[in-house]
Amino acid sequence: MRKLLLLLFSCTCLSLSHAQVITSPDKNVTLKFELTAKGEPTYQLTYKKKPVVKPSALGLELNEGVSFRNGFTLTNSEQKSVNESWEPVYGEQKSIRNNYNELLVTLAQKEQKDRFIRIRFRVFNDGLGFRYEFPQQPELNYFVIKEEHTEFNLTGDHKIFWIPGDYDTNEYAYTTSNISGIADLIKKATIDVHAQQPIKTLAVQTPAMMKSADGLYINIHEAALIDYPAMNLNVDDKTFKMSSHLVPDAVGNKGYVQTNAQSPWRTIVVSDKATDILASNLILNLNEPTAYKDVSWIKPVKYIGVWWEYFVAGKSSWAYSDETNVKLDQDFSKFSTNNRHGATNENVKKHIDFAAEHGFDAVLVEGWNIGWEDWFGNWKENVFDFVTPYPDFDVKALQKYAADKGVRIMMHHETSGSATNYERRLHQAFQFMADHGYNSVKTGYVGKIIPRGEHHDSQWMVNHYIHVAKTAADYKIMVNSHEAVRPTGLHRTYPNWFAQESARGTEFEAMGGLAPEHATILPFTRLMGGPMDYTPGIFQTDLSYYGTGSDQRVNTTLVKQLAYYVTIYSPLQMAADLPENYTRFPDAFQFIKDVAIDWDETYVQEAEPGDYVTIARKAKGKNEWYVGGITDENPRTATIPFNYLPAGKQFIATIYADGADASYDKNPQSYTVRKVIVTSKSQLKQRLASSGGVAISIKEGSREEMKGLKKL
Amino acid sequence: MRKLLLLLFSCTCLSLSHAQVITSPDKNVTLKFELTAKGEPTYQLTYKKKPVVKPSALGLELNEGVSFRNGFTLTNSEQKSVNESWEPVYGEQKSIRNNYNELLVTLAQKEQKDRFIRIRFRVFNDGLGFRYEFPQQPELNYFVIKEEHTEFNLTGDHKIFWIPGDYDTNEYAYTTSNISGIADLIKKATIDVHAQQPIKTLAVQTPAMMKSADGLYINIHEAALIDYPAMNLNVDDKTFKMSSHLVPDAVGNKGYVQTNAQSPWRTIVVSDKATDILASNLILNLNEPTAYKDVSWIKPVKYIGVWWEYFVAGKSSWAYSDETNVKLDQDFSKFSTNNRHGATNENVKKHIDFAAEHGFDAVLVEGWNIGWEDWFGNWKENVFDFVTPYPDFDVKALQKYAADKGVRIMMHHETSGSATNYERRLHQAFQFMADHGYNSVKTGYVGKIIPRGEHHDSQWMVNHYIHVAKTAADYKIMVNSHEAVRPTGLHRTYPNWFAQESARGTEFEAMGGLAPEHATILPFTRLMGGPMDYTPGIFQTDLSYYGTGSDQRVNTTLVKQLAYYVTIYSPLQMAADLPENYTRFPDAFQFIKDVAIDWDETYVQEAEPGDYVTIARKAKGKNEWYVGGITDENPRTATIPFNYLPAGKQFIATIYADGADASYDKNPQSYTVRKVIVTSKSQLKQRLASSGGVAISIKEGSREEMKGLKKL
Repeated sequence: MRKLLLLLFSCTCLSLSHAQVITSPDKNVTLKFELTAKGEPTYQLTYKKKPVVKPSALGLELNEGVSFRNGFTLTNSEQKSVNESWEPVYGEQKSIRNNYNELLVTLAQKEQKDRFIRIRFRVFNDGLGFRYEFPQQPELNYFVIKEEHTEFNLTGDHKIFWIPGDYDTNEYAYTTSNISGIADLIKKATIDVHAQQPIKTLAVQTPAMMKSADGLYINIHEAALIDYPAMNLNVDDKTFKMSSHLVPDAVGNKGYVQTNAQSPWRTIVVSDKATDILASNLILNLNEPTAYKDVSWIKPVKYIGVWWEYFVAGKSSWAYSDETNVKLDQDFSKFSTNNRHGATNENVKKHIDFAAEHGFDAVLVEGWNIGWEDWFGNWKENVFDFVTPYPDFDVKALQKYAADKGVRIMMHHETSGSATNYERRLHQAFQFMADHGYNSVKTGYVGKIIPRGEHHDSQWMVNHYIHVAKTAADYKIMVNSHEAVRPTGLHRTYPNWFAQESARGTEFEAMGGLAPEHATILPFTRLMGGPMDYTPGIFQTDLSYYGTGSDQRVNTTLVKQLAYYVTIYSPLQMAADLPENYTRFPDAFQFIKDVAIDWDETYVQEAEPGDYVTIARKAKGKNEWYVGGITDENPRTATIPFNYLPAGKQFIATIYADGADASYDKNPQSYTVRKVIVTSKSQLKQRLASSGGVAISIKEGSREEMKGLKKL
Repeated sequence: MRKLLLLLFSCTCLSLSHAQVITSPDKNVTLKFELTAKGEPTYQLTYKKKPVVKPSALGLELNEGVSFRNGFTLTNSEQKSVNESWEPVYGEQKSIRNNYNELLVTLAQKEQKDRFIRIRFRVFNDGLGFRYEFPQQPELNYFVIKEEHTEFNLTGDHKIFWIPGDYDTNEYAYTTSNISGIADLIKKATIDVHAQQPIKTLAVQTPAMMKSADGLYINIHEAALIDYPAMNLNVDDKTFKMSSHLVPDAVGNKGYVQTNAQSPWRTIVVSDKATDILASNLILNLNEPTAYKDVSWIKPVKYIGVWWEYFVAGKSSWAYSDETNVKLDQDFSKFSTNNRHGATNENVKKHIDFAAEHGFDAVLVEGWNIGWEDWFGNWKENVFDFVTPYPDFDVKALQKYAADKGVRIMMHHETSGSATNYERRLHQAFQFMADHGYNSVKTGYVGKIIPRGEHHDSQWMVNHYIHVAKTAADYKIMVNSHEAVRPTGLHRTYPNWFAQESARGTEFEAMGGLAPEHATILPFTRLMGGPMDYTPGIFQTDLSYYGTGSDQRVNTTLVKQLAYYVTIYSPLQMAADLPENYTRFPDAFQFIKDVAIDWDETYVQEAEPGDYVTIARKAKGKNEWYVGGITDENPRTATIPFNYLPAGKQFIATIYADGADASYDKNPQSYTVRKVIVTSKSQLKQRLASSGGVAISIKEGSREEMKGLKKL
């Protein structure tokens, strides 16, 4: 079903002094490229004739010699149009339309022996992507980037949903302010996070979500981050000009380039409708098709885990013993158990039983391997070996137990940030997985990076994550990385790297709590780059329940946790709560058991960053639909149409709704489950509680099943 | 034949205020340990009652908190005596005597909750070794070293043979001066070397060889450098106090310590006879016995190589093509050959033929693998893959060709300093070797290190080299590392790491030349730490011979090159010249073919650093002896006894001597070969030319063979 419509215009001249303009296929988005009198490349962008980005400079500063910033002559200009569709291995849609007009300009520096670079612009109906390209040429083989100077000269003091610029972590809470308000708020926003390295000048991270006074939604991020450092955005809060700030390496350099090469795509998604931002496939489209020949082994996964108990139950520990100083060559079976170890044979079997009974694919087990006694905070290199279990975790017996029940155990590779140690042991670690029937791994990078001086988001680490993903593919292993650089759509190219954390997820609900608005911002920010292992599904939201003295709570209603399975797209979804909490609420749990994790179609129905999100999706290959709606601290009434349903047919909708007296902070476990008949003409008006939600499953039903059900 | 005599004295007291003194078994060397009034540890050393090191401080400065420099109380003191012998896998002697008296002091910091360290001193007849030990304890699990402050407070303005302090290279020419003269000479001495990082303050490297005005020879180095950075020596050229200067990592830290741990041994070899310095086994004795269970596969190797032609012949290149920008995923067979590639099937076969004909074990082939087109100078990470041959190098066919003739091909793994790339590919690289019959590898680290910011001699790289050696052992592979940190006797513990470069070797004869005295200094400096792959055996010393326009020359006579096989100890010895040059001088070549590379006994007969060295050795398990004598630019007459020969028996000595008209710069290829009868009572007075030498092989002979030979 791949259709390609390609038109090519080329103009090769010694000098093209006039501006180059291209528009999106629907004519709404217009890109204008121009060289200044000094030969400095600039671009500007409009949406429906409203300025989005005012004339902004492009270019790179090099460590040595003349930079790629000015002195350019336009020596060639090409345009083409592409309209095709492609099918992802998994995703929010079965088929994705890739439709853009492209401008490729060649810029030569006459005084540098005609050394040249190219800039490629692609204009989609929902925005712009552009990148720098560095073709191989006699005068250009290697260079080191001191800084990229890509500007985003914004039109005003937009509202912005932001986290502080940082070289090492994305795990900040979002702050909402105008651009001019960032400076006053950034100190407060830069809360303590493990191994953070906040940028000392005023900067925010991407994806940066903005809304202009004239009603435009603007999202800046990047696509296809390969062999290059991640980009932060310098903020000029007087002129509202943002500019690229790359993450440096150990010696302060920002990137090592060997031609032929290119930068990642810089992306600007823009619309006058917030829902269009969430529906955008621009970033995916700018990534390369999958690099793997065989992707048949890559499957979405719904899982539970020995995990949440480490945060809330107050009884479990990753570590087997209370030793304070361990080395991998020690015999851990000689240590005394602390009797709080979570990854015991008994506990894991209990989880396997539960997973098998309720149809989960896998059980994540953290704390299975030696080294957790002092794994963190010492910049230690040989923290874990990834192959030696604690004495109370019988790898072979548990694998057999799980396999007999049709369940997989999910591997856990916490690296403590010691990437060199992980790379050194990578083949043995994956061979161990292959030998023992594991097919997915959760990786972690909690702590300061080794190689020391490198950052989580520097070029070397960007390459590390991809190396891990590609090596895992050799062993048919799927990877879910935590604390890695935030995603940029690379799950298209490396589909076994099927989820990431790279933002605050559920764990922070047990470490101070997430703001009720948090998950209404995530789809506009973190999720723009790719699937998140958010680990939703917490039913027991009041953590004082565990009697550990904690007065913390998960800041949602129970139903909002259900809605997350639809609003937070991921081919990897966890039911994160303790099994016994699901047993207490079997009717609500049914939604988690039912909900799909791969989709034919997605319908973004309502959305406003920081306020609410409602999304409906059709399950992959099935006549089933699932709807999730969430709100921030403000109760609201969602308006939910069903117009995507096949016309003229009745379906059974099971509606999971906040109870009339529900609220996240007072009565989170108040909910109702009701079944009704819906058709494509139905519309639901559903009240959501404070930090509440709504979740709906829609299935075909027999006449018998529909009997007695009311029409919506 | 292992004998152990152990005496133990222990004294545990709350406070031991008096000084602790131990002497060497022969009473010549005396170590005194004392705490100052401020609780600062100090030591002093005498040899035959002459001061060697005046009272000198000991201690470490930490990155955080109170350092290990003062505030100490002596809480325990133990002494023991050891007298044993052990057999190395290969070496200068079949059996090595390990005889020392030990003092172990425990030093507690009362104000740091009794946190304690230990210092262990071992006094041998030929010097002192001491190290810091950091036992595990509740108050001490991890710390970061800011600097080690070990002082060597010397007694005067000694003559010193030195190279500039540097974090990345040992490949400097030696300078001889008094300590007070270093400052004036260091700028000139710090010549350009690839990827150098000279220390900005006044510092020299170890092994530092000194001679005092009162006739003491003093050598400072270290033993068992594991999980710690290498030590340079700060020089105070007014007070003649030297002090430790560790190599920093990318962020300026000097060492990451997890208790239980210890520093390397700081070694001071001392004698009033220069020959004792060369005969010392102190550094080997301070290293741990081998870590391997099976060492039967570790064998000394005599080899030739496709190597010297890259430097002199002017026709060969490591690279297959003249491309200037290549990536490993390119198809190199599509490149045009430059017709100068050295590692071709034809050339390698020629070398295999030669090796087989003349009894060499192996042929080193450099330039066999893709990537050499732009391997150097760009801080590039993915330079080589270590498994893909150039199109004109048929791995399987050549391996079969070599195996059929009983010859091994020696692998070459140049890393270009990209240690991360090497580690990432290490298992595949070694598996490739195992699959194709290689059992030894020459590694190289030419260039700036990746992880960027690390140094060749920083802790991370020190661990890297050991990681490579240990991993190689898993594949029964022997390692010869070039450009790695200089050795510290670790070939005892990891005997498959059987040779290193880590100094200027023969290659520099083609890049400006080595001073005639160079090889008379090496045994007192670089070779103190372990075997060197010096690659001797150049017969065609005048390089203008090749008609490439070069007027360079190897600054020795032909015979001095022969002598190197004895004066430069290594279980790995190359005959480095082109095969055709050996064919031109078959009688001289016979010595290289005959000379042993493993020894039962070694007799250092004459030595003066910077002037001359004469050594005799008995071949391992054979009644054969080999003698090598060399001199600097000054001709001299060596006095060579044969008193080690079994008494009352006649042997045939073949004496390779400089011709009467020989000199390194005018007539280097003038030599004589004569056979004489020698006994244990014989003594040879042999004239050595300017930068000349003498080489002797001594074998049993039949009556027939001895017929007509004169007695010496």
